[in-house]
Amino acid sequence: MTDQNAAHKAKMEKIKAARDRMMAGKTGEKGLIIVHTGTGKGKSSSGFGMIMRAIAHDMPCAVVQFIKGAMATGERDFLETHFPEACRFVVSGEGFTWETQDRERDIAKAEAGWETAKEMIRDPRNRFVLLDEINIALRNDYLDIDEVVRFLLEEKPEMTHVCLTGRNAKPELIEAADLVTEMTLIKHPFRDGIKAQAGVEF
Amino acid sequence: MTDQNAAHKAKMEKIKAARDRMMAGKTGEKGLIIVHTGTGKGKSSSGFGMIMRAIAHDMPCAVVQFIKGAMATGERDFLETHFPEACRFVVSGEGFTWETQDRERDIAKAEAGWETAKEMIRDPRNRFVLLDEINIALRNDYLDIDEVVRFLLEEKPEMTHVCLTGRNAKPELIEAADLVTEMTLIKHPFRDGIKAQAGVEF
Repeated sequence: MTDQNAAHKAKMEKIKAARDRMMAGKTGEKGLIIVHTGTGKGKSSSGFGMIMRAIAHDMPCAVVQFIKGAMATGERDFLETHFPEACRFVVSGEGFTWETQDRERDIAKAEAGWETAKEMIRDPRNRFVLLDEINIALRNDYLDIDEVVRFLLEEKPEMTHVCLTGRNAKPELIEAADLVTEMTLIKHPFRDGIKAQAGVEF
Repeated sequence: MTDQNAAHKAKMEKIKAARDRMMAGKTGEKGLIIVHTGTGKGKSSSGFGMIMRAIAHDMPCAVVQFIKGAMATGERDFLETHFPEACRFVVSGEGFTWETQDRERDIAKAEAGWETAKEMIRDPRNRFVLLDEINIALRNDYLDIDEVVRFLLEEKPEMTHVCLTGRNAKPELIEAADLVTEMTLIKHPFRDGIKAQAGVEF
């Protein structure tokens, strides 16, 4: 072993010991309220990455998709085709507001989606529930933020994880959440005339 | 239809028309260099969410996992079990630096991982390649950033997407990339003594 590598080893042993001490204090487990917000990419896709993990760990899971829904997406097709038992997939949206152009119908759809979401979260078999794009429905006041937060804090089973995605997450939701990530846009190819592409955006 | 809904519809029609004009200019397709960085959650999981989309669209894909590897993860288990043909999964790492405590071996592993990564990217069958945690190997100077950027810009097949994840992405990589998202940590349950949990972190 070179001197440099020996010095590296000594330093890493110290870091490892400090880390082990720190991690020893982290023993709790609980179902988390997880929020993915911001204008960058990755809010929904990381939700679906967690769905992949949940399925791998035999944790029954469910997706309720708000707003989106008119358009076929890879993730929906994938889960409905390969894992209809492991992961329930419910679409409640019919497209963005400028597509549907019918606020009353959008509100009714969002409310129906929220009823389904509550059912999925209450179902004691489910361990992970993804509420995709629900933040848009909350931002548009299609759903009452106080009711959503109250339900998550008071009625969510203790060990169930719920992940809520979409830009412009309401402050009340961020306050109530355990794990919040903001996806920040640094660079996007739309600016260079590149369209949404299969495998990347849908 | 109520007056309020009619006004909403008129407004949405205008937005839709403006949006359609904007999107009509976005017709290009290209294989993207995608970077997920920052200290927040979701860098790897959104990479795996895109792998789910790629598989759904019958786009053959591959994962090369740097740094991580000693620990079993849901995503690895999931892909190796269910999609061994659709998605090649290669592990090159053996753990974080404080786990391996052997810089020379870490460098050799990273270099071997990069050789595999180049093979996967060059393979004309692959349409999406995820280089998970490669930014850590670059940050630690286990790999030469100039060589990685040169390869991506000059040798990556035009229609192949490559996603590179990990905190502290090098500025040279961000400069070369088409799509960059920074995952920003807003709130994390580790601070409240909650440990890494199945389905969420691995």
